[in-house]
Amino acid sequence: MEETFVPFRGIKNDLKGRLLCYKQDWTGGFRSGYRILAPTTYIFFASAIPVISFGEQLERNTNGTLTAVQTLVSTALCGIIHSIIGGQPLLILGVAEPTVLMYTFMFNFAKDRQALGQKFFLAWTGWVCVWTAVLLFLLAILGACSIINRFTRIAGELFGLLIAMLFMQQAIRGVVEEFGIPQRENPNQTALLLSWRFGNGMFALVLSFGLLLTALRSRKARSWCYGTGWLRGFIADYGVPLMVLAWTSVSYIPVKAVPKGIPRRLFSPNPWSPGAYANWTVIKEMLDVPPVYIVGAFIPATMIAVLYYFDHSVASQLAQQKEFNLKKPPSYHYDLLLLGFLVIVCGLIGIPPSNGVIPQSPMHTKSLATLKHQLLSSKLVSTARRSISKNSSLGQLYGSMQEAYNQMQTPLVFQTPPGLGLRKLKESTIQLVSSSGNIDAPVDESVFDMEKDIDDLLPIEVKEQRISNLLQALMVGGCVAAMPLIKKIPTSVLWGYFAFMAIESLPGNQFWERILLLFTAPSRRCKLLEYHATFVETVPFKAIATFTIFQTVYLLLCFGLTWIPIAGVLFPLLIMLLVPLRQYVLPRFFKGAHLQDLDAAEYEEVPAISYNLSFDEQDPQARNTCTDNGEILDDIITRSRGEIRHTYSPKVTSSTQTSQDDIKPLYSPRVSRKAYSPQVGELRVEQNPQFSKKVPEARQTPSPRLSMLGQHSRGSTST
Amino acid sequence: MEETFVPFRGIKNDLKGRLLCYKQDWTGGFRSGYRILAPTTYIFFASAIPVISFGEQLERNTNGTLTAVQTLVSTALCGIIHSIIGGQPLLILGVAEPTVLMYTFMFNFAKDRQALGQKFFLAWTGWVCVWTAVLLFLLAILGACSIINRFTRIAGELFGLLIAMLFMQQAIRGVVEEFGIPQRENPNQTALLLSWRFGNGMFALVLSFGLLLTALRSRKARSWCYGTGWLRGFIADYGVPLMVLAWTSVSYIPVKAVPKGIPRRLFSPNPWSPGAYANWTVIKEMLDVPPVYIVGAFIPATMIAVLYYFDHSVASQLAQQKEFNLKKPPSYHYDLLLLGFLVIVCGLIGIPPSNGVIPQSPMHTKSLATLKHQLLSSKLVSTARRSISKNSSLGQLYGSMQEAYNQMQTPLVFQTPPGLGLRKLKESTIQLVSSSGNIDAPVDESVFDMEKDIDDLLPIEVKEQRISNLLQALMVGGCVAAMPLIKKIPTSVLWGYFAFMAIESLPGNQFWERILLLFTAPSRRCKLLEYHATFVETVPFKAIATFTIFQTVYLLLCFGLTWIPIAGVLFPLLIMLLVPLRQYVLPRFFKGAHLQDLDAAEYEEVPAISYNLSFDEQDPQARNTCTDNGEILDDIITRSRGEIRHTYSPKVTSSTQTSQDDIKPLYSPRVSRKAYSPQVGELRVEQNPQFSKKVPEARQTPSPRLSMLGQHSRGSTST
Repeated sequence: MEETFVPFRGIKNDLKGRLLCYKQDWTGGFRSGYRILAPTTYIFFASAIPVISFGEQLERNTNGTLTAVQTLVSTALCGIIHSIIGGQPLLILGVAEPTVLMYTFMFNFAKDRQALGQKFFLAWTGWVCVWTAVLLFLLAILGACSIINRFTRIAGELFGLLIAMLFMQQAIRGVVEEFGIPQRENPNQTALLLSWRFGNGMFALVLSFGLLLTALRSRKARSWCYGTGWLRGFIADYGVPLMVLAWTSVSYIPVKAVPKGIPRRLFSPNPWSPGAYANWTVIKEMLDVPPVYIVGAFIPATMIAVLYYFDHSVASQLAQQKEFNLKKPPSYHYDLLLLGFLVIVCGLIGIPPSNGVIPQSPMHTKSLATLKHQLLSSKLVSTARRSISKNSSLGQLYGSMQEAYNQMQTPLVFQTPPGLGLRKLKESTIQLVSSSGNIDAPVDESVFDMEKDIDDLLPIEVKEQRISNLLQALMVGGCVAAMPLIKKIPTSVLWGYFAFMAIESLPGNQFWERILLLFTAPSRRCKLLEYHATFVETVPFKAIATFTIFQTVYLLLCFGLTWIPIAGVLFPLLIMLLVPLRQYVLPRFFKGAHLQDLDAAEYEEVPAISYNLSFDEQDPQARNTCTDNGEILDDIITRSRGEIRHTYSPKVTSSTQTSQDDIKPLYSPRVSRKAYSPQVGELRVEQNPQFSKKVPEARQTPSPRLSMLGQHSRGSTST
Repeated sequence: MEETFVPFRGIKNDLKGRLLCYKQDWTGGFRSGYRILAPTTYIFFASAIPVISFGEQLERNTNGTLTAVQTLVSTALCGIIHSIIGGQPLLILGVAEPTVLMYTFMFNFAKDRQALGQKFFLAWTGWVCVWTAVLLFLLAILGACSIINRFTRIAGELFGLLIAMLFMQQAIRGVVEEFGIPQRENPNQTALLLSWRFGNGMFALVLSFGLLLTALRSRKARSWCYGTGWLRGFIADYGVPLMVLAWTSVSYIPVKAVPKGIPRRLFSPNPWSPGAYANWTVIKEMLDVPPVYIVGAFIPATMIAVLYYFDHSVASQLAQQKEFNLKKPPSYHYDLLLLGFLVIVCGLIGIPPSNGVIPQSPMHTKSLATLKHQLLSSKLVSTARRSISKNSSLGQLYGSMQEAYNQMQTPLVFQTPPGLGLRKLKESTIQLVSSSGNIDAPVDESVFDMEKDIDDLLPIEVKEQRISNLLQALMVGGCVAAMPLIKKIPTSVLWGYFAFMAIESLPGNQFWERILLLFTAPSRRCKLLEYHATFVETVPFKAIATFTIFQTVYLLLCFGLTWIPIAGVLFPLLIMLLVPLRQYVLPRFFKGAHLQDLDAAEYEEVPAISYNLSFDEQDPQARNTCTDNGEILDDIITRSRGEIRHTYSPKVTSSTQTSQDDIKPLYSPRVSRKAYSPQVGELRVEQNPQFSKKVPEARQTPSPRLSMLGQHSRGSTST
């Protein structure tokens, strides 16, 4: 995206691009049939449970002014509108933790002001939303999203870790509070006697840790050894809502032995209860807010605008990573404009606004990649079967598969060169068949394991459409009606869920991994190398440590700021400040090459190698260890905020003096230690072509352990 | 061991062998200095915690007649005697779960008999012990241990799994009882009100699961990435007692908020309390037992004798596995004779007898292997350093290292060929040096990473001595004095420990792994192949399933038998019955080759390949993934009850038609699928010499994944 700040140009470009594919967004979605329900329900649960948790958190923080009903309504409303008229339909909207935090700050401010108080809190936030929206309009119109490439990993990952810390803080605080007397309850009831409170607290520990541990386990189901692939996939995808259900059931086991109120459950009025309508008519009270506060609302509004600008854009960016090979254009400016409208709407009906959420948005794209994969694969397999039954030669087989593949492609202006993905398929198939027979002879099915080979060779593509987003938003809306059921969830299960979300967000966050690296024994650093950690090889440990400690101190500053009662509202500013800091200040303290390896910024980066390459490299290895495609996609998502490891990427050599040859895998661990003695260097160079001639795949797909070792020995010599 | 049933010959042979090295058993132990304390404390904790748990279990099951004091005294007394005058000092004695079970059966029988009752229970068990001892004497004298090679895996592993089930049953029962009112307590106290009982039960869940999960985690500390190697090793070795300490501390956190008695703690009189002497003088009451019960005591005595004969021999067998390369002779018959004496002594002072325990005995040998390794390694490294500083050539270096190595060897009649272990060292060093320079040139230290290389090349040897066994038994005795401290442990922590022991005993139990295999998706079976599961490749799945289901039904029968109030005492018979069943009945239902792969019996087995080979194969791989020696030893212990996987073992081909060539690693996963098309077969054969010429180690040390794949594809074709 070029950096253009001509008013409206960004919005115009976005609209132009998206309108071209608007019709296809719907027809393509309908054409995928019932299968669309899998990604839809997956995202629905990933979206609804946090929103319910945030509702509970808001309910405590705002003395019951806002509850899960409001957060659910906001998520559903914004989701429906965005999925229909929004730019990027992969982006999932929802009430997010920073919003909850900002609303808590605002509530704490308002409740102590005589002219506002709890009564005018929502009306005042209405004004905050109006100002926020005005600022978002300005940002969208002036093309602020053009600088999105300056949002480097340092800011995004620090933000991610801050959110994780806030989640964990809430989880711990929540469990501790289970031992105490809640504010809103009558302290004389049986369930609040010291003895029962002790039991309640201990029960809460059991439920929250139970949920946390089983949920973490279930996420890894895809790599389990037991059960069928279908069951494993089901548990991995739906394990977390299933566990919420399971632990909610467990909470009913001792129901006869304990008084009512143990364990404590979600508190929220039903949307149809009397008095639950208070917030919907907040617009009537907005003019009663004293003018000084109407103007003063501009201050939190700035912060929220900065926050949403950052959060919404980053979520959208992550949902559209290069790795997904999207074919439809992005729409940053128009989506920011639409967000402005949504914020106003939410403000006027007194509900907290929604914005693009992480990690749900990239999760959504991923689940649609799986969907597209299934659709493509079943089509190609049936085509190939038909072709084989007609005694076709390999050439004919390939021709009919190419045709089928092209039929499945979205007919768009922005189309990639036709058949790009399948060319690879042709090459591999030919290589495969030629190794065992004549290329012109009729192909018989024994030659290859059809389903598996096609699965392995298909490129990553995403079923880009609007149906899944719309349906999940409608389902979130349905939750409002299901409130009496949702209220059966014990609060302690939600605290466990908070801890789960905090922990789940850590892998793939390179900042977190660098913190761990500081505590890793030098001899074990190679274990961390396995994933996306090129920097360990290319940047001296001292520079990594300095950079990480700087970032950690900064993170703690941000976290500390959120503890300050009212000034805490300024925390988004501190995060945005990292963007200029990264661009202008950090280069003075760190070598350019190191900084680039630690925090690649597109504006100073060499062109990246397309993801396909590294996916190829990992693919055969993945096949060996009997992983399935879901596991690979899981990996991509885990690394979504990290860097994809390119073994042959030119970036590897950016800060070291070694030649490309040195990066080649070393097959003899004993030899590798002396990689720098000239004799051995020769030995290795002489040895590599031998490998590549005899077993072409062996050279291209080194076992990660071996290549790791080679690089590790190199790293240790250069530092 | 030849099968000789000439009376006394077995005992005589044992005594002759052990007397020759008796002096060295002591001098060698003293010479290892302070380092002996590491294995000693390690085994002390592994021995003391279960014995305390069993004491608590007995206390409940016998209405307080027997407590942790008695189990600790028995373990200490028998341990001290055995370590001084026993045959095999590697064998650790202790009160074991089957003993607790037998005593429970006997108590339940005695308490309902008017002539016995709780009063004469101990006197009667005194008679049981006398009869047991008589039977053990007979077995020892008649050379019953000569048939120990008929105790194949089927019986041992079924017994192991039965013990695990009993442990788990006790853990679950214990936690459930935490919610109830204990028999011995006054039900009107505050801590037993419904509300506090609920809290107590929930607290018990937290404590027991806390202990279970953290203990399981800490056992894996050696493969953690964080902390120094020393710390990781410390946590792996002492993590479990540390966790008992930690969770006991946690149990004191809410002490101010809860009434006395929450959580419930270990119950035992101090050994110096009035009335705690009752059992020591039981000999005076033995003649008051009605004669019919004196004679009747023969029935449980038979069972206990069968049990001890089996358990003691198997524990001794596991402590002396081939993999440990022991140099001193075994002593099965003499140890069984001594066990008879110990049983009498215990019976006469009214404490439950001890016998050889699993897994502590093999754990003991393992920790002594680590000790020997440290001693050898530090000696050789200092020798090599000295040699290098004198500008020695490689030949001289090797010479001085060989000399130092020989000095460390035990000067025994049963010595293995001298320098067997170090010959390997010479070869590897020469290979290593010749790849980078002249063999006669002075060696400089840069050539190899001294400590690491020596570590890697040392053979497994065990510091066989008596000091560690004696010291650990003395320390267990010290626990009796520390009873007031031990009583601070919450019972729920012990239930967690029971569950931990049950789970810890599963890996390496091939029976358990076969049960898991039944539930494993066919496509994932290769994951189970990584360890000791040759049978998956060589035996048709149907035969594995039949065999496993038969064994499972048999296990459930045994478990069911323990539930029957008094007939349960017969359960050891059912286990011993498996030995003739295996030898005479099973061969009618299963192919000989299959049976041999599933349950190798030495009496029908081809000579096994010595463990060194497979250790070599894994070693370089282990080095690559930065494992340390402790991890490898851990592995051996885990597999102590399983089979060591020999990639090139002739056994692999016992029931398949494939030639040795097929077992060679396949480097191209794509090619491997068609391993049976003749063309590709040729391609591979042509390719392997290439590999072996250029990179000798690559052929010998295939990455396990690759070789696994090759075998998997073979397996799937042959089944």
